[in-house]
Amino acid sequence: MPEFRQDPVSGRWVIIASERGRRPTDFEPPPPPSPGGFCPFCPGNEPHTPPEIYSVRPAKDDKWLLRVIPNKFPVLNVEGDVGRVGEGIYDRMNGLGAHEVIIETPLHDTPLAQLELPAIEEVLKAYHARYVDLKRDFRLRYALIFKNQGEAAGATLTHSHSQLIALPVVPKRAQEELAGARRHFEYKERCIFCDILRQELAEGSRVVLENEGFVVISPYAARFPFETWILPKNHQSSYEAVTGGQFRSFARILKNLLMRLAKTLNHPPYNYMIHTTPLQEGPNDYYHWHVEVIPKLTKVAGFEWGSGFYVNPTPPEDATRFLREARVEREF
Amino acid sequence: MPEFRQDPVSGRWVIIASERGRRPTDFEPPPPPSPGGFCPFCPGNEPHTPPEIYSVRPAKDDKWLLRVIPNKFPVLNVEGDVGRVGEGIYDRMNGLGAHEVIIETPLHDTPLAQLELPAIEEVLKAYHARYVDLKRDFRLRYALIFKNQGEAAGATLTHSHSQLIALPVVPKRAQEELAGARRHFEYKERCIFCDILRQELAEGSRVVLENEGFVVISPYAARFPFETWILPKNHQSSYEAVTGGQFRSFARILKNLLMRLAKTLNHPPYNYMIHTTPLQEGPNDYYHWHVEVIPKLTKVAGFEWGSGFYVNPTPPEDATRFLREARVEREF
Repeated sequence: MPEFRQDPVSGRWVIIASERGRRPTDFEPPPPPSPGGFCPFCPGNEPHTPPEIYSVRPAKDDKWLLRVIPNKFPVLNVEGDVGRVGEGIYDRMNGLGAHEVIIETPLHDTPLAQLELPAIEEVLKAYHARYVDLKRDFRLRYALIFKNQGEAAGATLTHSHSQLIALPVVPKRAQEELAGARRHFEYKERCIFCDILRQELAEGSRVVLENEGFVVISPYAARFPFETWILPKNHQSSYEAVTGGQFRSFARILKNLLMRLAKTLNHPPYNYMIHTTPLQEGPNDYYHWHVEVIPKLTKVAGFEWGSGFYVNPTPPEDATRFLREARVEREF
Repeated sequence: MPEFRQDPVSGRWVIIASERGRRPTDFEPPPPPSPGGFCPFCPGNEPHTPPEIYSVRPAKDDKWLLRVIPNKFPVLNVEGDVGRVGEGIYDRMNGLGAHEVIIETPLHDTPLAQLELPAIEEVLKAYHARYVDLKRDFRLRYALIFKNQGEAAGATLTHSHSQLIALPVVPKRAQEELAGARRHFEYKERCIFCDILRQELAEGSRVVLENEGFVVISPYAARFPFETWILPKNHQSSYEAVTGGQFRSFARILKNLLMRLAKTLNHPPYNYMIHTTPLQEGPNDYYHWHVEVIPKLTKVAGFEWGSGFYVNPTPPEDATRFLREARVEREF
């Protein structure tokens, strides 16, 4: 059973995935995937994956357009209880949680940015459906929805997919953001993200894209070159609250942004992650869900991991200009 | 001039190195360094570097064995004042600070682990000398001493070197550790790192190495496979306090650890970083300086950056066993 362990100094939790038990030789770089090799996410190979949790099919017996399955090698297990115990000055608990994979398309070679708009909308709706379902499990406190695109960004399979990890604790970075947003609200009685949007839309130099429902900015204190955030224009504390036409607006701006990143940076590997309110909290006035999109362009990772201190060689105003000026085939 | 910008939500500072001004095409992977190519750190090429700040020479006119120079492409400038100003809801300040390079050896191809013990001792003494000198500049609040070994760990030159960045702010990760250690001290009136050492030495399963002055452990909640920490055995709050024979003990355990990592993991790229008390604080009872050594083995970086949530596939107890059992030519 994997376990959570807490660092007694910083309070950070990590998952020790002991059954993965990787030995020194397991870290040799894997061979590059062969183009004609076996892909467990391709149609026809469904028996090689754990049973489907969710799918999109035009009609009941049609082929699937999207599938959600439990991760075959989960970092967490959904059975059992939290079982929090001390070990001297240390704390640990069972590796309880959910780890799911969203297979975004039956097409093996098509990245998310290239999917048709309705297909991207279905991906965003699948995130929502899984989010709402996992929220009903009161043991779970936070749902991380994220995507690793490209090997350098941590993807082990090329077939386009996202992941969802639901945790019995709120991760440190989310806690910090929630605490910062709460502090601002206590002082100003305004959502800090709404304040950021107001200032950015008035000033303009870091606004990459805007449509009726969403804004893309390159944040003032961007940690990484070409880092961008997608925020809903109107205050909304959780991804759970997204409804109806909002999915379409979100899909349009996400596709537009990913096309611009692909064009500007020659199809970079990237990560994105949805930041949202913890699962078991109701709607609130201080936090504002958003997506952080980070192309993986630089390698100064280790040191910056260790220090929490980032050097960004591309000012966000420059990144904004390059992304705005990218010529994409058409706008969405 | 580079500038610091603060994220209004998390409070994290980043350096926007605007004069580096990297454009999209600047992120294409650089060509691998040619074996016979020009190296600015090699003897004979001193005129191509900024003027020397510190050096080690057996006698005054001898050839150098170690040099410290300002970084030719610094992320910070040492001239000017902090100049902290607001921009609406945002905060920024001038990119004031120091950025130095410690060239550890005249030998182009010899990694730190392979240097003779006295040479490693000189490296650790050079860190100390520069630390003490920069502390005299009251504008500077924190000195980060770190090493990137190997291209995947962010090194751009192969000739073995370390770096020192002195900052007008205490970086977030250091702040978190200091705050955690202070909380423990307020509650227990004991240093948390001394408590960790006591428990680890009694328990044993995560103790990789030990000598008269230092202990190497693989921490209980290790974020990365084969992450290790080097701690002085007796309480010492700052790297500034290291004296005399301690440098020799530190050099011996560092060399031993790096040789074991090289043997166990086939010369992995790695980062290390000294965590210490802020420059302008005196000695204290709650914080305990140490080194974090992180081999760069996994690629799940982007997501973990974004969430602060780490999955480690190698339990620290396993890493400890592999490192202990590694057969190195001789012990130090």
